[in-house]
Amino acid sequence: MKVGLIGLGKMGYNLALNMRDNHIDVVAYNRSIEKVKEIEKEGVLGAYSLTELVEKLPKPRIIWLMIPAGDPVDEMIDKLLPLIEQDDIIIDGGNSHYKDTLRRKEFLKDKGINFVDIGTSGGINGARYGACMMIGCSDDIFSIIEPLVKALCVPNGYLHTGTNGSGHYAKMVHNGIEYGMLQAIAEGFEILEKAPFSFDLEQVARVYNHGSVIRGWLMELLQNALSKDPKLENILGVVHSSGEGLWTVQEALELRVPAQVITTSLFTRYRSEQTDTFTGKVIAALRNEFGGHKVETKE
Amino acid sequence: MKVGLIGLGKMGYNLALNMRDNHIDVVAYNRSIEKVKEIEKEGVLGAYSLTELVEKLPKPRIIWLMIPAGDPVDEMIDKLLPLIEQDDIIIDGGNSHYKDTLRRKEFLKDKGINFVDIGTSGGINGARYGACMMIGCSDDIFSIIEPLVKALCVPNGYLHTGTNGSGHYAKMVHNGIEYGMLQAIAEGFEILEKAPFSFDLEQVARVYNHGSVIRGWLMELLQNALSKDPKLENILGVVHSSGEGLWTVQEALELRVPAQVITTSLFTRYRSEQTDTFTGKVIAALRNEFGGHKVETKE
Repeated sequence: MKVGLIGLGKMGYNLALNMRDNHIDVVAYNRSIEKVKEIEKEGVLGAYSLTELVEKLPKPRIIWLMIPAGDPVDEMIDKLLPLIEQDDIIIDGGNSHYKDTLRRKEFLKDKGINFVDIGTSGGINGARYGACMMIGCSDDIFSIIEPLVKALCVPNGYLHTGTNGSGHYAKMVHNGIEYGMLQAIAEGFEILEKAPFSFDLEQVARVYNHGSVIRGWLMELLQNALSKDPKLENILGVVHSSGEGLWTVQEALELRVPAQVITTSLFTRYRSEQTDTFTGKVIAALRNEFGGHKVETKE
Repeated sequence: MKVGLIGLGKMGYNLALNMRDNHIDVVAYNRSIEKVKEIEKEGVLGAYSLTELVEKLPKPRIIWLMIPAGDPVDEMIDKLLPLIEQDDIIIDGGNSHYKDTLRRKEFLKDKGINFVDIGTSGGINGARYGACMMIGCSDDIFSIIEPLVKALCVPNGYLHTGTNGSGHYAKMVHNGIEYGMLQAIAEGFEILEKAPFSFDLEQVARVYNHGSVIRGWLMELLQNALSKDPKLENILGVVHSSGEGLWTVQEALELRVPAQVITTSLFTRYRSEQTDTFTGKVIAALRNEFGGHKVETKE
């Protein structure tokens, strides 16, 4: 099996090495040449243009995009279209919004190009040594690409979730759940950190992770982080977000699902990006107006 | 090592069998005699009164309580006190509030009795085949009981969390985290269940649990539940709570930790216990008053 991989960022680069190790012939392309040179040194076949990439692939071509969601995906599809042919397969392995995926599917269908959405989980380490993949496509196309995803995932770690869009949808919800789980774990550990006992937080994470109800990979990662920085003193409590949490909340709103914890987790991230808040100013001003409560002022 | 175990409910019964399997001599007592008879058939030594239990233990005695939190613990301590002697050790392995534990510790200290709090996690299966334990007590007492907890827990599955109360505290926070994780997972799956794709929820739980970021024991249990009832049609969405979530929220309030997700998870359980709500009535009434919006009425 031979695959073209576009995008050698953290996820793509490791996925290419994962392919190499699992006997998938991979041709790797990246916009900036340095990454292509780097991966060639690892024994992966490189391509220095999209034309070269496409020429190096047997028909029907399988081209795996591992690039940022949004416009870059549309732009890449536009660049590929003149180079590829009917029955070729484009896989979008990034965190695209499922509605974009549905739109792209229709657009490519008119041109006879097959489209597959793969939601990829497991982080960088998963991309490298065994990922988790949720795959949306037709049954026919799935039967073609199944050996590929099987080679890249941990045992039992892939699922044909259904028709196009369902892979990205399942990944979106996965990330929404992740937002809530992270916030729950984090709140617990802030309580432990301020508790009337001197907890060794790393050791608490360790014991939580051996035989308890809340054991799981995130708790393992927390133990790991605390082993390097026992009170996380070198990290600021600022948490950005890259879209999937927001989309999960938007989807919950459309479906009228009261997803209060996922929503609160997203808002908590937004709050973490603020230093002072206008909300706080408004309440302080009003308490001062009605009750004469002192406000804190700028120097 | 010989231990007296009081309370043969789901957790205690399985803990007794766990002790038996791991070469801990256990004498088991339960208020209702049937359970004692039952466990004797399993090869565990039974006691039909507290006096008998205490007489069958070498000094210093180790007596493990596995009984409901609250008054039952105080009542049991009161019953044991005339029977036991200085330097004996009482372990409270239940879900007691840590402030009760601190009070009991002081009360027993005056009488020369040692007290240990153990927060136990891992569910019934953990109690039976390898638990997770968080242990609050002095270093001296910990060195006495460590072989016991080591025998009962999974490898790496116990921690001397600190002084008295810290074991129950760590377990309380564990349960608070569990509330939030459960709610996050549940919200995600409600979105999947109402999604514009026909997801096989059991299979989604399966793939989430193999190589993904959110893999963990709760996801395994969900896969298991969905394998028996694919849409959970035989279960009502009513979720009760037994105290630890409430205590975590109360502790967060005292410590001024904005534990929004854990709090929301608790409130969501309270809401699940209601059919209609007074909140809803108030809002419906007011929207009718100011905007003439129709209200739904009783038949």
